[in-house]
Amino acid sequence: MSLVRVHNLAVSLDGFATGADQSLEAPFGHAGMRLMEWFKETATFRANMGGDPGEPTPDDAFAGRWRHGIGVEIMGAGKFGPPGWHDDPGWRGWWGEDTPFHTPVIVLTHRPRPPLTAGDTTFHFLAAPPAVALEAARELAGGLDVRIGGGPTVVNEFLAADLIDLLHVVVVPVVLGRGTSPWAGLDGLEERFASESVSTPSGVTHVTFTRRARDS
Amino acid sequence: MSLVRVHNLAVSLDGFATGADQSLEAPFGHAGMRLMEWFKETATFRANMGGDPGEPTPDDAFAGRWRHGIGVEIMGAGKFGPPGWHDDPGWRGWWGEDTPFHTPVIVLTHRPRPPLTAGDTTFHFLAAPPAVALEAARELAGGLDVRIGGGPTVVNEFLAADLIDLLHVVVVPVVLGRGTSPWAGLDGLEERFASESVSTPSGVTHVTFTRRARDS
Repeated sequence: MSLVRVHNLAVSLDGFATGADQSLEAPFGHAGMRLMEWFKETATFRANMGGDPGEPTPDDAFAGRWRHGIGVEIMGAGKFGPPGWHDDPGWRGWWGEDTPFHTPVIVLTHRPRPPLTAGDTTFHFLAAPPAVALEAARELAGGLDVRIGGGPTVVNEFLAADLIDLLHVVVVPVVLGRGTSPWAGLDGLEERFASESVSTPSGVTHVTFTRRARDS
Repeated sequence: MSLVRVHNLAVSLDGFATGADQSLEAPFGHAGMRLMEWFKETATFRANMGGDPGEPTPDDAFAGRWRHGIGVEIMGAGKFGPPGWHDDPGWRGWWGEDTPFHTPVIVLTHRPRPPLTAGDTTFHFLAAPPAVALEAARELAGGLDVRIGGGPTVVNEFLAADLIDLLHVVVVPVVLGRGTSPWAGLDGLEERFASESVSTPSGVTHVTFTRRARDS
């Protein structure tokens, strides 16, 4: 069975993975780039932006794994566009034609629309609970793994449904005070996972949770 | 000037430093020992408990610093006793005569009582805001540093008043779901501090915040 993976989920010390008050001008809300500074220095990010990737940093050992072996991404409506995008029939995602996914993407939304192709990615819009969305994703994945691409609410829902096999969290030593938490209602989550923590010179800590064997 | 320090403040991934529902039987609330497992394995803890300290672990490099150069501790009422201790004139603290502090302690409380000596520690009960409590603490400290011993609400109040010079946080890869956060209202705290993160084999990450030079 293919795995369901989360990569590069950056969270603040107070447990928020995005800030409050997201908008077209502020995709990460009041947090700005504070959860992303470590990522901007990675070859993974620089290559995605079309620039010279430069030398890989220790953070690249983690950051670069996000696309290996992935056949499809599932994302929430809040990642596809700013508040209100549902009302704009011309909205094609934040990325224009430079979509960085290179796989199909399922966008979870209560207001589905027909599939949309931008760059080499086809976005499929789906109103479905996590388990049903995952079935649909696996049909698109060609036997490869499924990435849950966020935002934090979607990650939270898949964790609550116990559908995640690998969860890569990046603890960033900042305090946001408010925002969206991927952890709500997940008291005791650690019991289902083995975990490993690695700090890097950038000051962040990569925590990798790997789902323990399920009773069969 | 002596420094104001916080040591071994263990926080969950969702930013809680104690669980909910604290009581006489459950001093850490529903969190139980989940934030403290790493600490129980340290020579620092084992020596405090009167046992053989054994070999120091990497965590000891951090845990052991809590008492060096400390002349006094300030703690909150919630650390001194379980809910309701104010109504028990015979309550002498959780520690009996085996007080582990070896310095005077100031207990912040809205219901002060006369000083109390247990073991080699005298507890002074004080109703005062952080800056005033700190003045009183320095008078007891003999020129040494002041430790803010928690709980998280007291740490939060001293951070909000910008009175902390060194803050040692231990990020524990558990999710509590509810409890008390030291971070409330501290959006942007990191701007006042330099920080350094070190993970250890136990799976926790030690984040040390050092106050940047203040404008004089």
